[in-house]
Amino acid sequence: MQLKSATRTELISPFYVMAVLNRAKQLQAQGRDIIHLEIGEPDFPTSDSIIQAGIRQLKSGQIKYTPAAGLPELRQQIAEFYWQRYQVRINPQRIFITPGASGALLLALSASLNPGDELLLADPGYPCNSNFAHLLAVKPKLIPVTTSSAYQLTAQAIQAAWTAQSKGVLIASPSNPTGTIISSEQLTACINTTQALNGVFFSDEIYHGLSYGEDCVSALQISDDVFVINSFSKYFGMTGWRIGWLIVPEAAIEAVEKLTQNIFIATATNSQYAALAAFLPETLAELELRRSELQTRRDYLYNALIELGFDIPIKPNGAFYIYANASRFTDDSMQFALDLLEQQGVAITPGKDFGQYKAEQHLRFAYTTSIARMSDAIQRIHTFIKQG
Amino acid sequence: MQLKSATRTELISPFYVMAVLNRAKQLQAQGRDIIHLEIGEPDFPTSDSIIQAGIRQLKSGQIKYTPAAGLPELRQQIAEFYWQRYQVRINPQRIFITPGASGALLLALSASLNPGDELLLADPGYPCNSNFAHLLAVKPKLIPVTTSSAYQLTAQAIQAAWTAQSKGVLIASPSNPTGTIISSEQLTACINTTQALNGVFFSDEIYHGLSYGEDCVSALQISDDVFVINSFSKYFGMTGWRIGWLIVPEAAIEAVEKLTQNIFIATATNSQYAALAAFLPETLAELELRRSELQTRRDYLYNALIELGFDIPIKPNGAFYIYANASRFTDDSMQFALDLLEQQGVAITPGKDFGQYKAEQHLRFAYTTSIARMSDAIQRIHTFIKQG
Ligand SMILES: Cc1ncc(COP(=O)(O)O)c(C=O)c1O
Ligand SMILES: Cc1ncc(COP(=O)(O)O)c(C=O)c1O
Repeated sequence: MQLKSATRTELISPFYVMAVLNRAKQLQAQGRDIIHLEIGEPDFPTSDSIIQAGIRQLKSGQIKYTPAAGLPELRQQIAEFYWQRYQVRINPQRIFITPGASGALLLALSASLNPGDELLLADPGYPCNSNFAHLLAVKPKLIPVTTSSAYQLTAQAIQAAWTAQSKGVLIASPSNPTGTIISSEQLTACINTTQALNGVFFSDEIYHGLSYGEDCVSALQISDDVFVINSFSKYFGMTGWRIGWLIVPEAAIEAVEKLTQNIFIATATNSQYAALAAFLPETLAELELRRSELQTRRDYLYNALIELGFDIPIKPNGAFYIYANASRFTDDSMQFALDLLEQQGVAITPGKDFGQYKAEQHLRFAYTTSIARMSDAIQRIHTFIKQG
Repeated sequence: MQLKSATRTELISPFYVMAVLNRAKQLQAQGRDIIHLEIGEPDFPTSDSIIQAGIRQLKSGQIKYTPAAGLPELRQQIAEFYWQRYQVRINPQRIFITPGASGALLLALSASLNPGDELLLADPGYPCNSNFAHLLAVKPKLIPVTTSSAYQLTAQAIQAAWTAQSKGVLIASPSNPTGTIISSEQLTACINTTQALNGVFFSDEIYHGLSYGEDCVSALQISDDVFVINSFSKYFGMTGWRIGWLIVPEAAIEAVEKLTQNIFIATATNSQYAALAAFLPETLAELELRRSELQTRRDYLYNALIELGFDIPIKPNGAFYIYANASRFTDDSMQFALDLLEQQGVAITPGKDFGQYKAEQHLRFAYTTSIARMSDAIQRIHTFIKQG
């Protein structure tokens, strides 16, 4: 028998950083000290109040399927959170608990886009978004974005790229990999333009809360008829718990309910109970301390990279990433990443993982480790560059 | 703006039992006592050894993303489990940890089937399978199955239904909703026929382990070039933990790795560590006790339903379901279920949830509750039928 994989599997890109990671593991196994600046999750443990809520739930022994859309009390709490944080009123029925933002992205796209439809996305951007499109035979249309628009889509770019096949626009702010935030005006213009074109607007707000000196506007403050993707992974420090949420337009509730029943049955029960503790005042206070620690790290790494000669035209105000232009040192950032790892034991992510546009010139550095470790990394990169 | 849902959302059926469940909740809120014979998860708590492993992991505070394919030690343990249970050697690289069998089904189908391809399935069968097909614009082709083949597909039926568009065959044994098990010969013939037709074979083995007096054969005992879906949900009693696994042919490893990275990032970390305890001798001993309790319940419910006048041509030897022909009482099993709930407070699942073939004549009863409760339910059904 000739086993042939589905076509989509040829379109879906692997994570190129895995090559770096696998080599890093080999080197670590040989006793080499590797500094990880490629990791997309903060090094903080999950807050103790969340852990304790999880333990309490496990002790009950009753870890059964929850309703498909999630625990009613968690959906209610998220609704209240939107009122407190953004002053918007969200009907809890519009809120679906999902296995991470990943689950929310799959639900949102499959609720709205047909095979052959085009989805407009920023390049560079989070690679899974294009790959979710491929999964559904939707065509990702990557639009190069530059510093002139804070690496975010603009109304003009959407308008210019739009064709009869275009059906949706997805933005992510703060952005992965650039850490840049879309302004309220730019977001409003993007939403208005998309809706005027009869398109569906998707806003990935997973890095909301992780911003430094600049507030993030939710798409829900601009329109009710958008899909908003969010997660407990990043700001709430719950990556491995696999829990996020999706907010949908009223008109989409029924379709999304059917999809989520069938695709997921439900999100992990224990994670849902634990997440109830994420909104406690003491948890939020701790998360705010972590945010300011991340801000300090951002400042450190930004300055150090600039000093080394990397070009970072916009100081990123969100997430925990710095997207640096390394064209002074290389025109093959993947090779640069592999060589840096091999010679100096520092792991970073090649631009290639985030799209095609000037990908070979760029590298992503994550400040998800301590300043002490980053300072060692900077020394090593310095040595590497001098030798190169 | 006119928000239009994607076409697939019109093809995907809702869970009809939700109408029953929602009404059951209302009645319960009014103080009515409802007996649940519709629930697809055992009433046992998760085994304490699994719970304790979960708690230990939570206490570490380090609930980070795991590798996309899962914890290496868990993949290794599953490989050993296959050796012990089925005497087959599985390379752990072929084993992917997934968010439930649900996640495994999504991965398996998306790794192998293209939009427009046909997937052959038994009717009646687990409804999500058709709906996963719709998600991917794959066409589910429902093949009516009867007691003559233990409600399972046969080589003849596959051959007869096969067209140029047919690309895959999915069987589930023990079956949901019928509880029936495919014989080793029939399974071998199905696999051979599918492979001779150059099709991909998917075997959903989520109810393996829950069989009474009859062993379940794994598709992996017959061929290495099959996709096997399994889960910790049912035999291992871990529904709400959302963890399962997929075993793929060697040739599919790379494609499935890319898909799982992108779609899920990873399965819940805590659930993976907890699942490590599922294979401990003391856990397995406890699960075997539960299995014999289920067998006793099966015998009780089977006899009681027959006595009431339901027709159950095959005594089901697996899972925890009885699929009963209620044509003596109704030609609208959905209405029967709603009326039974309203008048007597017993919740069951209408045949409609499992396909189209003679669905209006059938009902699914789950023996996931105690004999004491089932005996009350039987009294109430008796009263209901007499009045009807
Ligand atoms: C922009 C963006 N969206 C979505 C996700 C998915 O995260 P999760 O599924 O853990 O919530 C990530 C993870 O890195 C991300 O960077
Ligand atoms: C036949 C069958 N397959 C797959 C599943 C999915 O189960 P889970 O995702 O909890 O492993 C179920 C759940 O009821 C089922 O009955």
